[in-house]
Amino acid sequence: MKNIKSAGVIGAGVIGSGWIARLLLNGIDVFVFEPSKGAQNNIGKVIRNAERAYKNLLKSSLPKKGRLSFSSSVSDVAKSSELIIEAVPERLSVKQSVYDEIESTASKDLIITSSTSGILPSDLQSEMMHPERLVVAHPFNPVYLLPLVEIVGGKETSKGVINETCNIITNIGMFPLHIKKEIPAFIADRLLESVWREALWLVNDDVATTEEIDDAIRYGFGLRWAQMGLFETYRLAGGDAGMRHFISQFGPCLEWPWTHLMDVPEFTDELIDKVSSQSDQQSGQFSIDELMQKRDDNLVDFLKVLKENRWGAGNALKEFDAALSNSNSKVEFSELDVSQPIVTFSTHIPKEWADYNGHMTESRYLECFSESTTELMAIIGVDKEYIANVGSYFTVETHIQHLDEVLIGESIYSKTQVIYGKNKKLHLFHWLHHDDGRLLATAEHMLIHVDLKTRGASMPSDLVINRMEGIYSAHKKLPKPDGLSRAVGDKV
Amino acid sequence: MKNIKSAGVIGAGVIGSGWIARLLLNGIDVFVFEPSKGAQNNIGKVIRNAERAYKNLLKSSLPKKGRLSFSSSVSDVAKSSELIIEAVPERLSVKQSVYDEIESTASKDLIITSSTSGILPSDLQSEMMHPERLVVAHPFNPVYLLPLVEIVGGKETSKGVINETCNIITNIGMFPLHIKKEIPAFIADRLLESVWREALWLVNDDVATTEEIDDAIRYGFGLRWAQMGLFETYRLAGGDAGMRHFISQFGPCLEWPWTHLMDVPEFTDELIDKVSSQSDQQSGQFSIDELMQKRDDNLVDFLKVLKENRWGAGNALKEFDAALSNSNSKVEFSELDVSQPIVTFSTHIPKEWADYNGHMTESRYLECFSESTTELMAIIGVDKEYIANVGSYFTVETHIQHLDEVLIGESIYSKTQVIYGKNKKLHLFHWLHHDDGRLLATAEHMLIHVDLKTRGASMPSDLVINRMEGIYSAHKKLPKPDGLSRAVGDKV
Repeated sequence: MKNIKSAGVIGAGVIGSGWIARLLLNGIDVFVFEPSKGAQNNIGKVIRNAERAYKNLLKSSLPKKGRLSFSSSVSDVAKSSELIIEAVPERLSVKQSVYDEIESTASKDLIITSSTSGILPSDLQSEMMHPERLVVAHPFNPVYLLPLVEIVGGKETSKGVINETCNIITNIGMFPLHIKKEIPAFIADRLLESVWREALWLVNDDVATTEEIDDAIRYGFGLRWAQMGLFETYRLAGGDAGMRHFISQFGPCLEWPWTHLMDVPEFTDELIDKVSSQSDQQSGQFSIDELMQKRDDNLVDFLKVLKENRWGAGNALKEFDAALSNSNSKVEFSELDVSQPIVTFSTHIPKEWADYNGHMTESRYLECFSESTTELMAIIGVDKEYIANVGSYFTVETHIQHLDEVLIGESIYSKTQVIYGKNKKLHLFHWLHHDDGRLLATAEHMLIHVDLKTRGASMPSDLVINRMEGIYSAHKKLPKPDGLSRAVGDKV
Repeated sequence: MKNIKSAGVIGAGVIGSGWIARLLLNGIDVFVFEPSKGAQNNIGKVIRNAERAYKNLLKSSLPKKGRLSFSSSVSDVAKSSELIIEAVPERLSVKQSVYDEIESTASKDLIITSSTSGILPSDLQSEMMHPERLVVAHPFNPVYLLPLVEIVGGKETSKGVINETCNIITNIGMFPLHIKKEIPAFIADRLLESVWREALWLVNDDVATTEEIDDAIRYGFGLRWAQMGLFETYRLAGGDAGMRHFISQFGPCLEWPWTHLMDVPEFTDELIDKVSSQSDQQSGQFSIDELMQKRDDNLVDFLKVLKENRWGAGNALKEFDAALSNSNSKVEFSELDVSQPIVTFSTHIPKEWADYNGHMTESRYLECFSESTTELMAIIGVDKEYIANVGSYFTVETHIQHLDEVLIGESIYSKTQVIYGKNKKLHLFHWLHHDDGRLLATAEHMLIHVDLKTRGASMPSDLVINRMEGIYSAHKKLPKPDGLSRAVGDKV
């Protein structure tokens, strides 16, 4: 799959800035053209929000952040980029003049994606020299978190361009949804549009306030849609008889009286006032910045839940995290430096590891040490396959010294020394450090090799014994760690 | 607030069964009238799903489960119940005959709620002897998990009935949304209806399959709606200028070309076939049971995330859990039995505490012990208020013995002995037991009292010292726990 190293973004409003943040954090250099004042500030804010969110979202480390450059013209951007993302206002003529300027300098292979939420790609490409390079790639706010990108080709778009765009989108952790038939507003915005229309009537007719309508969504079907969408949810409502039964039961409702509300409410000043002031009443106690952070926190946690449950949008995150983890190079056992304790774990503290004070809570120290043990096990050959077929190590005893505190978002790493490693027994000592070098905690563990079928002690495989003894014979020459064999309350 | 002890449910399809499960798990006895075959089996299945979900959803224990009885007539149900929930099919005449039968025996104060998703309460009550007792309480599937209940009164419904219904709904962990103006289909189903209409067109016209439409929702705006709904999401899209700016920018889209799709698609056999077979293709690899469990797992985790983040539907859960926790009686310090180790913690293992084998993972043992320590601290007076104003205890050293395994969903409890408790020092020993009596693990901790401003050691308050020494002087007469003062690797 294609990995690009650079991209150009034309237009840096809400959507353009979101693209910029996602690209940079994926290690892609970004060239931006955005003439409006304050653009650099706004982009900086979005990047900071994205970095904050990703610290909680991903287990794996991201590649080195890309470089952000501001160009003084569209054609400068086009000259430097492997892909163009156009995110200028929704006016056909404005977009067409951008493409014109790009085509005046770019090679004919440069792909141009439009972030338009409604204009047909066939219209967008109608005046182009190389219309086959133009494809709609319509993302959703916040672009750095929501995976969906609607991919729509026009009459002239080449298949190759569509495929390559889908690959690039997948590589930056997103979910390309290729829409085969070109219609105005594509799919998602049509659905949104229909709800928006209905909701405005409800406000207009004083049936409900904006807050009541939002509550009707988020205390109810919104929680279903976030995981299953519309049809799969209704499949469940049909019970074991499934979709056909559902339609026969509820389909006729389409002709119920409320279909009379299908004309379009007019945006009178009165209606605008009503919606705006109800919205102030509902959400005005939070600034837009606060709301955005709240939204991102919730989105991150939803995505993590779905990843854990292997469902829906979590699948895109799972694949992305796995791809990142694979690209972080692994050391071969033969190349391992055993003359020193081995670095076995590193992470940044996610927010759910904190107590109410923002400090990492007690049990998460043991979680870090448990990860260190898991890594040491993997190094000596006790990996997923071994555990499924041969056995594993169980911790029978643990001693922890808590020495210092650490805050959410800070980075930590651990080192491990093998104190003893023969036959069924493995005795480990871990140090947990802050990235600034401070020692935060130590842990001492006794582990026993176990047959997972009998749940009783058993001998490891020859490979595991060889590797374990190899590290042990080197590590026993190291000094004994401070605090080894301590009991709780021993005097120093 | 009113707590009812019994309720009657007339009709036990998907919605009625969901009500039954929620009521029973809230300790309310339920009388059911449902003449169809297989009803008892279906209800049993829904109750089991609800119990499975609640084990993960709630921190606090639920009250003792209510009793489920099947009645042979509507009037029998009416005689035994403090509240009636009508959930029979959506036909006015069927519902009216149920009310008629209820009114023939019930006292005139008995509230009747209808679960109708569309019929006007004024029509429902039009033939009643005591129409003021009839109110719509429209819940959403699955009723035992989704908090939303739309409360709609008819022309004759009394204010008292509406208030009392809202109270009862709140007490069983739900979110009553009182809709002030009576319209067909209320709020949520109107929004759903509008999307359903649009989605059917997209399928009908081969723009997208059911799966593509669901993906467009759940990889995108569905994740926003689950937390913020429609208007609050759009407030963010407007940036710092808020709702008014959003409307001026996007309002005009309402008159874009796609509004021509506002007529109603006809349910031809062809369209029904298309939707059903696409749905099979999309979701047919899962049985309805599997899909329901997946849905519940995701819902539980979303609700927990929102509770943690103090947002939206999580607020209803937070209040419910707090109310449960308050109703679980607390022992006064003066009544505490200090002649034995103190029971400090009990829970059932939630699924996120398990390793891939379904056993509780290493670090969660320490989490249980950490909860035990927190409870012991609360007992001696180190509660939230004390921590905010005076100080807290920090663990400086821990020793754990892992003795046995425990599985997801199983119940555990811990006991605590104070080994030493004077001045700044607190030395604890915890035992963690399975409910069947097996000893799973022990933990020994040394804690130091700390001033949270200086982060240095400090003296506790007099009250804390008195209580701590009170327990210590009793506990030092107890035998020394097995394993006290062990170092890792000590011979037995």
